Amino acid sequence: MSSEFGKLLRISVFGQSHGKAIGVVMDGLPAGEAVDLEELNAFLDRRKPGKNSLSTARRETDLPVFLSGLENGVTCGSPLCAVMENADQRSSDYSLFRDNPRPSHADYTAFVKWGGQADMRGGGHFSGRLTAPLCVAGGIAKQILARRGVYVGAHLASVGTVEDMPFPLYPTQELFAEIAAKPFPVLDGGAGERMQAEILAARQEGDSVGGVVECAAAGLPAGLGDPMFDGMENRLAAALFGVPAVKGVEFGGGFASARLRGSENNDPFTVSGGNVTAKTNRAGGILGGITTGMPLVLRTAIKPTPSILKPQRTVCLPDMAETELQITGRHDPCIAHRAVPVIEAVTAAVLLDVLLEGNHGTF
Amino acid sequence: MSSEFGKLLRISVFGQSHGKAIGVVMDGLPAGEAVDLEELNAFLDRRKPGKNSLSTARRETDLPVFLSGLENGVTCGSPLCAVMENADQRSSDYSLFRDNPRPSHADYTAFVKWGGQADMRGGGHFSGRLTAPLCVAGGIAKQILARRGVYVGAHLASVGTVEDMPFPLYPTQELFAEIAAKPFPVLDGGAGERMQAEILAARQEGDSVGGVVECAAAGLPAGLGDPMFDGMENRLAAALFGVPAVKGVEFGGGFASARLRGSENNDPFTVSGGNVTAKTNRAGGILGGITTGMPLVLRTAIKPTPSILKPQRTVCLPDMAETELQITGRHDPCIAHRAVPVIEAVTAAVLLDVLLEGNHGTF
Amino acid sequence: MSSEFGKLLRISVFGQSHGKAIGVVMDGLPAGEAVDLEELNAFLDRRKPGKNSLSTARRETDLPVFLSGLENGVTCGSPLCAVMENADQRSSDYSLFRDNPRPSHADYTAFVKWGGQADMRGGGHFSGRLTAPLCVAGGIAKQILARRGVYVGAHLASVGTVEDMPFPLYPTQELFAEIAAKPFPVLDGGAGERMQAEILAARQEGDSVGGVVECAAAGLPAGLGDPMFDGMENRLAAALFGVPAVKGVEFGGGFASARLRGSENNDPFTVSGGNVTAKTNRAGGILGGITTGMPLVLRTAIKPTPSILKPQRTVCLPDMAETELQITGRHDPCIAHRAVPVIEAVTAAVLLDVLLEGNHGTF
Amino acid sequence: MSSEFGKLLRISVFGQSHGKAIGVVMDGLPAGEAVDLEELNAFLDRRKPGKNSLSTARRETDLPVFLSGLENGVTCGSPLCAVMENADQRSSDYSLFRDNPRPSHADYTAFVKWGGQADMRGGGHFSGRLTAPLCVAGGIAKQILARRGVYVGAHLASVGTVEDMPFPLYPTQELFAEIAAKPFPVLDGGAGERMQAEILAARQEGDSVGGVVECAAAGLPAGLGDPMFDGMENRLAAALFGVPAVKGVEFGGGFASARLRGSENNDPFTVSGGNVTAKTNRAGGILGGITTGMPLVLRTAIKPTPSILKPQRTVCLPDMAETELQITGRHDPCIAHRAVPVIEAVTAAVLLDVLLEGNHGTF
Repeated sequence: MSSEFGKLLRISVFGQSHGKAIGVVMDGLPAGEAVDLEELNAFLDRRKPGKNSLSTARRETDLPVFLSGLENGVTCGSPLCAVMENADQRSSDYSLFRDNPRPSHADYTAFVKWGGQADMRGGGHFSGRLTAPLCVAGGIAKQILARRGVYVGAHLASVGTVEDMPFPLYPTQELFAEIAAKPFPVLDGGAGERMQAEILAARQEGDSVGGVVECAAAGLPAGLGDPMFDGMENRLAAALFGVPAVKGVEFGGGFASARLRGSENNDPFTVSGGNVTAKTNRAGGILGGITTGMPLVLRTAIKPTPSILKPQRTVCLPDMAETELQITGRHDPCIAHRAVPVIEAVTAAVLLDVLLEGNHGTF
Repeated sequence: MSSEFGKLLRISVFGQSHGKAIGVVMDGLPAGEAVDLEELNAFLDRRKPGKNSLSTARRETDLPVFLSGLENGVTCGSPLCAVMENADQRSSDYSLFRDNPRPSHADYTAFVKWGGQADMRGGGHFSGRLTAPLCVAGGIAKQILARRGVYVGAHLASVGTVEDMPFPLYPTQELFAEIAAKPFPVLDGGAGERMQAEILAARQEGDSVGGVVECAAAGLPAGLGDPMFDGMENRLAAALFGVPAVKGVEFGGGFASARLRGSENNDPFTVSGGNVTAKTNRAGGILGGITTGMPLVLRTAIKPTPSILKPQRTVCLPDMAETELQITGRHDPCIAHRAVPVIEAVTAAVLLDVLLEGNHGTF
Repeated sequence: MSSEFGKLLRISVFGQSHGKAIGVVMDGLPAGEAVDLEELNAFLDRRKPGKNSLSTARRETDLPVFLSGLENGVTCGSPLCAVMENADQRSSDYSLFRDNPRPSHADYTAFVKWGGQADMRGGGHFSGRLTAPLCVAGGIAKQILARRGVYVGAHLASVGTVEDMPFPLYPTQELFAEIAAKPFPVLDGGAGERMQAEILAARQEGDSVGGVVECAAAGLPAGLGDPMFDGMENRLAAALFGVPAVKGVEFGGGFASARLRGSENNDPFTVSGGNVTAKTNRAGGILGGITTGMPLVLRTAIKPTPSILKPQRTVCLPDMAETELQITGRHDPCIAHRAVPVIEAVTAAVLLDVLLEGNHGTF
Repeated sequence: MSSEFGKLLRISVFGQSHGKAIGVVMDGLPAGEAVDLEELNAFLDRRKPGKNSLSTARRETDLPVFLSGLENGVTCGSPLCAVMENADQRSSDYSLFRDNPRPSHADYTAFVKWGGQADMRGGGHFSGRLTAPLCVAGGIAKQILARRGVYVGAHLASVGTVEDMPFPLYPTQELFAEIAAKPFPVLDGGAGERMQAEILAARQEGDSVGGVVECAAAGLPAGLGDPMFDGMENRLAAALFGVPAVKGVEFGGGFASARLRGSENNDPFTVSGGNVTAKTNRAGGILGGITTGMPLVLRTAIKPTPSILKPQRTVCLPDMAETELQITGRHDPCIAHRAVPVIEAVTAAVLLDVLLEGNHGTF
């Protein structure tokens, strides 16, 4: 088992980058939920490649076809399956890498695990392309959440060493919509321009660059999640590390909190609007694994795209000898900005699963 | 469900800090595995409080009593249950916090979830004391792993802004043993002294300080773990966020990788000793969720202890009005150094679970 | 993993028959639920051996000690652990069976699975004694269910070829209480006497006899459970086959339905008390895996106790040669009547788990 | 979550009877396994309707299209998705049943669970048609098992009160192949003719009839499965009750064992061919949840098709008043014979999952 997550809402992703199709099954989706296909496609557009010089030139149409679970635009209770055909494949690009695994790609580990039969064309099942069906699932989850007053949004917090400003203490639905409408998903337009310059510089050098995505959820009630191993952080992290290239996940203050004093890191409680709130949110909206009612805030580290034009050292497996590898073809010099909706999608899917479960602390 | 993790090896933790006892059930442990109780107790000693001025004065004897699963010092196949009685409780210390939740503790969220019935004496089920049975489980896992040539070790990578040196490219069993034998678990003794000074300074100011734990595993074969949502990172993170105070988890380069170029972050493959290895290990031994055969390396951010003597603002829940809270009693000014064996324990438990599953990529 | 079941409410059983203690962890129990210990002990009494000549003379005190999760008689939200010490063990009775496995016991399979280290004294982890902690869990579940108007009861439907009358179409709380108060759990006292005669006859011949337990739940709302693999039948059967000696599980008409015509087996819908009901209940209250609102009815086949005094053929494993085995010691000539509360317990635990999940078909 | 089963091999079924397509995802299938499509289609043919007068006239082409996981006829390690389009739908047949639920169908419970949005055309997700993708999964599992010397076969043990002979003590691969090649899957041809007469009689009366399927697996090693809640019986029953119309599952002697004495039901061990075997197999190859090495034998009760032409009583839900319902259209007078390959499929899928896990009792 590998490509599934969730407890009451199970999301199962299938497909290889250059296979016949990719898709997703959502099992446990509530019935009677309308899916606005226009809104869903607009969401999918946000992760699509080929929009500008910052992304690979590969074109994806990627309109999902719903095989089940959605009738007349409304969920019917039984598992939803959405499929996207793979087109515009140039599999010949990848024939070399079975014998000469690309550094920091999954070529080598897939070979060890699955043997020569592994279908690694275009990155196979490990490809970033598999985030398209994830976005279908997450886009549907976002619509269902929004109907309950829960909003999920994200922005590009950094590219290389260039940083966007962080989310405000209370990010709003409007702010999320504003970022989603931008061609480059940042809060501070100036930072966004410097990030794009950084990406283009990397591209011109035949290199790539990493980044950080910050994601938040507004409107969650307090009391969701369980202590220890089934808390919000556990469930979100378990899913978020499934997004290719994610190498770190932190909540609230995260690693920065580890540098602080308790008096700096603690969030004083206060009362606002008749509710218990906090004056700061270094907890990221989670204490003891359970939501506090403050916005949930997390960040994920996205490593630089491992596919770079610069020559690299690898091993020729048939010879078991070091060799030089030159990767050609179309590759994103940065995937962090395209990961923004993907992180939103996975976060939304986990939150919907937790909300379906409800607060069963009392009964 | 809340306090369990694992797939073929299920580890279930129970107990409240000031209840009758705490304990752990390990279901799925292989039979015929000797448990060296002396070695186990030495491991448990590493997380114990009350050893020096850096920790709370509370004394725990904490010798686990095995109710099942271990006969004549050898596992017998059926679920192992180990129990530790709670002694030296001063529950009167905590009566105040039900009405005036401590900032950045789980008092408030437990109250929202479980209502007035929540037993939060001493932090209840959220207490760091629950890491004692986790260490029983992890200590047993470590012994079983070592018998197969897999070694798990950790050190304190930072306290506040003071940093230890990182693990070398190939941390060894001997290095792990060396750190474990030290009174303060660091690689660089000088850094260790500065960290202890930092902790004492925080203590003198009635404050606390956070830290980072770096953990590594040597000897893992390549090919373990699955793509997407059941990979090594997913499974480890899901368990590690169950350790109280962990707010971030990263693998290999982690968040630092997000600041790098691909040419800096990629790990060139090479051949050494007849095996495919890598010249650097920013992947932390994991590509595509699957082990590469290089050491597995992770870091966890530990927030500063939320219990501080300095007065804090909170809300008096019966009045729904802000108030000042003064926490008295015994508290660790830093828990990061005591978290070192706990992170080892959880890592070892997850790795044993994955190893039990084997590489079922081919059959 | 082996000795756990449940989704939101996880029940984990540990212990060996002649180990230090047996027990159960309930993780996911709602907070604020009072546990009436007198009522619980009365329930546990129903499965106890040694009450009369129909059962083994072994004495168990079996008062559970609550290590966690229950404070001042009320659940506090964190995992509940209850432990029962093992006393009155005569382990010397069982030394023979490692080498000469008893027919139709788990001696041989435990040996194959766990090797010589398996602790099979008194049947080890496979012993019927492990149903005592199951009854603690189920007894607590029964109390929580009753508070919501859901009642679970069972009776001995047959012993050998002697049959009790079946439950009426609408078994009630009062009927369940009446059976529970009887020394022998049947509806028809005359059938009960013939069953007891059958058991005594088996005992006098150094033999044993099997039976069937019928269990019902009244008060369940319609709409619980999911289609296909997570329905009421799937979840109940998965747990019920965990009771030692259960070799068959059927719902409603069960195997008898397979002999009928559709016109005989179909349950016509009707209206009563303003609700949709059915005129018959061969569905056992379940259609498509989902509760109909009619009583849930199931039956489990309990095989005859494999321990009999009559000489039997087995294999001496060290010699790999057939041999004769004579089992001495104390054994129940029938366990089906003692299984009645156990089947209730497991059914109640599963139903509470399903109720905690709620009907998440719509949201 | 509803339509999935398995632990290391997760099988997820999706689709509604009259939706766009039905299908299955197999996640965790080992890589490098050839799938013989001709053999698979021959297996699928065995459950197909429309072959003779005993089945519905509905035609299904039902050639699965593989979207992922299978490249050049060999599994590649990533999740396999197979899809079958729905054709030949006459949805107008079913419009009546939303308001007037058919007795003993899932119409009413689906309505309670999912509300008016439930897509119950043709039985929706509850339709026997969903067993087609199950057979794709199970047919692939059968091929992988056969390559390891494990063979799964089934026959129709009874229709109404007409009984086939039971499997011999050691059913073989050859016997399974022989039954599979027959137009009507029985051991005793005479019994088969009487069964077919029984089905035709039911059909002529506008009625239907139930049956029992007996399934066996030869070649399983001893030591598979776990005690209590994760044993062979638990896992098989949990999956088998997912097959529509199954109302009972028993292993070995099953309910008949409950009528026996221990001396009649116990299976004496003996030695044959250097192995420990048993002289009888009332255990059905399972003791304590663990395989004995003898053939695994189970039976499932299949209720009579609830769709019958005879007028029935039901409730008109808009009026909440009893009414008469006349079901027209094409329906199988018996589905038990078509369930034979389905039971094989589910059994094979569970066995492959267990075999992938291996005997992790020792390590």
